[in-house]
Amino acid sequence: MNIENNERLTQIYQFYGILLTDTQRQYFSDYYFDDFSLAEIAENAGVSRQAVFDNLKRTAKLLEDYEAKLGLADNFAAIDQGLDSVLASLNEDNKEQAILKIQQIKQLIEEN
Amino acid sequence: MNIENNERLTQIYQFYGILLTDTQRQYFSDYYFDDFSLAEIAENAGVSRQAVFDNLKRTAKLLEDYEAKLGLADNFAAIDQGLDSVLASLNEDNKEQAILKIQQIKQLIEEN
Repeated sequence: MNIENNERLTQIYQFYGILLTDTQRQYFSDYYFDDFSLAEIAENAGVSRQAVFDNLKRTAKLLEDYEAKLGLADNFAAIDQGLDSVLASLNEDNKEQAILKIQQIKQLIEEN
Repeated sequence: MNIENNERLTQIYQFYGILLTDTQRQYFSDYYFDDFSLAEIAENAGVSRQAVFDNLKRTAKLLEDYEAKLGLADNFAAIDQGLDSVLASLNEDNKEQAILKIQQIKQLIEEN
């Protein structure tokens, strides 16, 4: 299967997996987390290899669409990095810079 | 129309409106933001009042389902409050407490 950026895909799955159907979650988890082959997943589910392939392709597209629209993975990563930056400022005892960075994070949240 | 918690609904719309169809967004915006009546929206769109009502009911359910699953409105509110709390600690020159609160926010993000 030729789906690029598996790491990115499993990352955004953490956010949007809950919006998928049970079957989509099952195949995705079997394939990306438990390293089953398409043939193995197909056999377990009693469907064709092509059906599993199509399902996984559609799931990847759904997850990418959700992230393109909602941007949770990117936004949460930006907030997390911002907080690290605040901690770094505090470790340098630069309170003013820390406050400025917190205000930037708040602005990021409000713009969402 | 008897939809409760309009304020809550318009708040979660800010997060998930982008996942709705153009028509859903149009009716929602006409009704909740521009204060059109069901009859007015129906006339403008050339559909029945009942169709507008059903559409708005379904939109409300969709938005509530997204928030129940993804919790963006609640999570972002919690992060924002956490940041206010960090700012309050910094204003009191309590650096240790500020760092502790930042770490709590980071934990909240990672659990998401």
